[in-house]
Amino acid sequence: MKSIPIILLGCGGVGRQLLHHIISCRSIHYKQGIVIKVVGVSDSRSLLVSDDIMLTGMEDEFLAAICHAKSAGSPLKSPLNLGHCRLFTEKEAVEKIVATASSLGGTTGLAVVDCSASAETIDVLKHVSSLGSCVILANKKPLTCAIEDFEKLAFHFRRIRFESTVGAGLPVIASVTRLISSGDPISRIVGSLSGTLGYVMSELEDGKAFSEIVRAAKSLGYTEPDPRDDLSGMDIARKGLILARLLGWRINLADIKIESLYPSEFGPDSMSTEDFLAKGLSHLDEKLKERVATASLKGNVLRYVCVIQDLRCNVGIQELPKDSALGRLRGSDNVVEIYSRCYEKSPLVIQGAGAGNDTTAAGVLADIIDLQDLFA
Amino acid sequence: MKSIPIILLGCGGVGRQLLHHIISCRSIHYKQGIVIKVVGVSDSRSLLVSDDIMLTGMEDEFLAAICHAKSAGSPLKSPLNLGHCRLFTEKEAVEKIVATASSLGGTTGLAVVDCSASAETIDVLKHVSSLGSCVILANKKPLTCAIEDFEKLAFHFRRIRFESTVGAGLPVIASVTRLISSGDPISRIVGSLSGTLGYVMSELEDGKAFSEIVRAAKSLGYTEPDPRDDLSGMDIARKGLILARLLGWRINLADIKIESLYPSEFGPDSMSTEDFLAKGLSHLDEKLKERVATASLKGNVLRYVCVIQDLRCNVGIQELPKDSALGRLRGSDNVVEIYSRCYEKSPLVIQGAGAGNDTTAAGVLADIIDLQDLFA
Ligand SMILES: NC(=O)c1ccc[n+]([C@@H]2O[C@H](COP(=O)([O-])OP(=O)(O)OC[C@H]3O[C@@H](n4cnc5c(N)ncnc54)[C@H](OP(=O)(O)O)[C@@H]3O)[C@@H](O)[C@H]2O)c1
Ligand SMILES: NC(=O)c1ccc[n+]([C@@H]2O[C@H](COP(=O)([O-])OP(=O)(O)OC[C@H]3O[C@@H](n4cnc5c(N)ncnc54)[C@H](OP(=O)(O)O)[C@@H]3O)[C@@H](O)[C@H]2O)c1
Repeated sequence: MKSIPIILLGCGGVGRQLLHHIISCRSIHYKQGIVIKVVGVSDSRSLLVSDDIMLTGMEDEFLAAICHAKSAGSPLKSPLNLGHCRLFTEKEAVEKIVATASSLGGTTGLAVVDCSASAETIDVLKHVSSLGSCVILANKKPLTCAIEDFEKLAFHFRRIRFESTVGAGLPVIASVTRLISSGDPISRIVGSLSGTLGYVMSELEDGKAFSEIVRAAKSLGYTEPDPRDDLSGMDIARKGLILARLLGWRINLADIKIESLYPSEFGPDSMSTEDFLAKGLSHLDEKLKERVATASLKGNVLRYVCVIQDLRCNVGIQELPKDSALGRLRGSDNVVEIYSRCYEKSPLVIQGAGAGNDTTAAGVLADIIDLQDLFA
Repeated sequence: MKSIPIILLGCGGVGRQLLHHIISCRSIHYKQGIVIKVVGVSDSRSLLVSDDIMLTGMEDEFLAAICHAKSAGSPLKSPLNLGHCRLFTEKEAVEKIVATASSLGGTTGLAVVDCSASAETIDVLKHVSSLGSCVILANKKPLTCAIEDFEKLAFHFRRIRFESTVGAGLPVIASVTRLISSGDPISRIVGSLSGTLGYVMSELEDGKAFSEIVRAAKSLGYTEPDPRDDLSGMDIARKGLILARLLGWRINLADIKIESLYPSEFGPDSMSTEDFLAKGLSHLDEKLKERVATASLKGNVLRYVCVIQDLRCNVGIQELPKDSALGRLRGSDNVVEIYSRCYEKSPLVIQGAGAGNDTTAAGVLADIIDLQDLFA
């Protein structure tokens, strides 16, 4: 049996789902000759580490109890029975992770899995990576910081995986990586990478008013608590940046042209979420209606996409042919079109649900298993 | 630098394109810290092996010369200047391959790449696999023989790759493998896995007569020399079998229900290709026309697909909703829809060109690079 010890950073929706997946896949992985040992779990405040790292990792009952407590809103330390684990505070945590990486990283192997939503994990990730550990991310932030930091992480390219940062479990990063290593030069990637904005754009196409669509989406729970977090395009820009950097481009978030779906005078600094929903939004209806109509006259539809082409990454509304994969898109699926020498006239298309804890955590788990050859 | 020694079986359209890709990707792979060393190339008659296996493999000029001679129709031995290579006859070839595998397989690693179209490579592939070598296939036949043979090859699952056997370079096998290892149970795979039949079905949808479509496809070079090789569905059944076996099903080709697009009385045993095209075909027009019309009344379209579901694999014409990924398909792209827990209502869809030497060889090369961690 091959053992893959992991330390999980972040125990929110995705992190907990990952622990559940690991537990429920025990027999599948056993048949593949693999055991995933969870040796540490952290949240924003503390880190729990199994005292018995080399032997068993934490027991499944214990992992389930952690999930149960965390989803009830308790911090990691209480009210759990600590078993054979030790709790470290935020400050000690980094030291402990680095110590574990330096004892396991270059030998049996260790994987540090970032399911946090924090920009602050970058330092510990760079450190453990330099010590020979594997790094797996659902968290986009460490990959969208300064290019120098990205390059330090990506330098050990065989030891890092980040499928779930773009399109959740959809095999986008894996497919782009395959094309690159087969020498098939990618000339263009266009993606609808937000389920929320995919939904908004297809409702707009059906003639509904923007303000109504956004209000409905918010009440259906499709948006972030403040829908402007979706409408700003920032999250999509991070995904575009990750794809562009994967292509070897040395660009930063500031180099991406982002078209926000609301003007800055309706931003969070000027207006509460309630005011935005009740008043601000309706001012945007007319202009979008006109754009939809203009596009439609040309047989086109509007999509909110990320376009990566000619060393530029742009995020915003584009007019696209109705009969392309992106043009046909309805609802909240993500779609990515990849154009290359092999997929020149007709792109390689990957489509499916691009968000949700289940698929995101499944993508992280597939990444962990994909790294198995690096473990003893 | 990591060195990946390969022996290539088959030097036809795909095999030669692979050699070209390897040569033109030298600098990309060099940046990734990888050198692919071609230590042997075979065709149906003989095997050329570099005498100097551990040092350099064959030189790029020499590989280019092999391709040039083979594409001009010469066998491997003449008129090449053999350089530091030795030529083995068909019988000696297997011994030489096994000897190379046993000296490299368990240590530095060796990859045997099957780009032949032969069912006879299975024995040497099983042998080298048991000796620790990696096996990469574009050739479907060794994977669609008896289940026992398949299982012997697939037993060393981390050392085998066969992306290009289904949908050429499209990341179908890689995506299914990811879903399996993340414990996301696949409930259904539906694929349009033949560019030729994809084209035929979308032309039928446009109201053209079957006989005309097939004759036009043949004259455009879209079909095999005898179009019945496409219309029989046999090639798609092999692809379906590979997918079903990947899901862990212990089935054989004989267990697959295949709907041929021509009746057995029009088969190659009863009728020449010319007679089939000139006379046989037109007898099939009426019935297909009716089926298209019946489907259309229900808002459906006909697609020639492989359906893998409930432990059954069926190949043939299916009525599918016009607004599904498969229903919207036009032209010769392949499309695969994968349904699982994570992709339940809306499937994971992968679409793009599913044939051609360039994309097939690129898929093989991506498989080779994907195995890099197993090489010294
Ligand atoms: N959900 C999706 O559909 C999806 C899809 C793709 C990618 N992602 C990404 O996956 C990540 C996790 O998403 P989520 O929905 O699970 O978020 P979440 O529910 O907000 O959970 C975030 C977790 O990270 C922890 N955390 C915060 N700062 C930390 C730090 N410095 N060190 C360690 N842990 C820290 C939090 O701790 P506390 O519990 O103490 O607050 C919390 O447990 C995010 O980066 C998100 O963008 C999510
Ligand atoms: N082309 C595509 O689009 C595509 C897509 C997916 C998969 N594939 C698969 O890829 C494989 C190669 O296709 P292709 O188009 O390159 O075929 P091809 O042009 O017919 O070439 C076949 C090659 O295999 C050699 N060969 C035959 N028997 C052999 C044996 N026992 N040992 C070693 N070599 C042997 C042949 O030798 P000679 O030169 O002496 O005849 C020839 O060089 C096939 O299995 C095909 O199904 C092709």
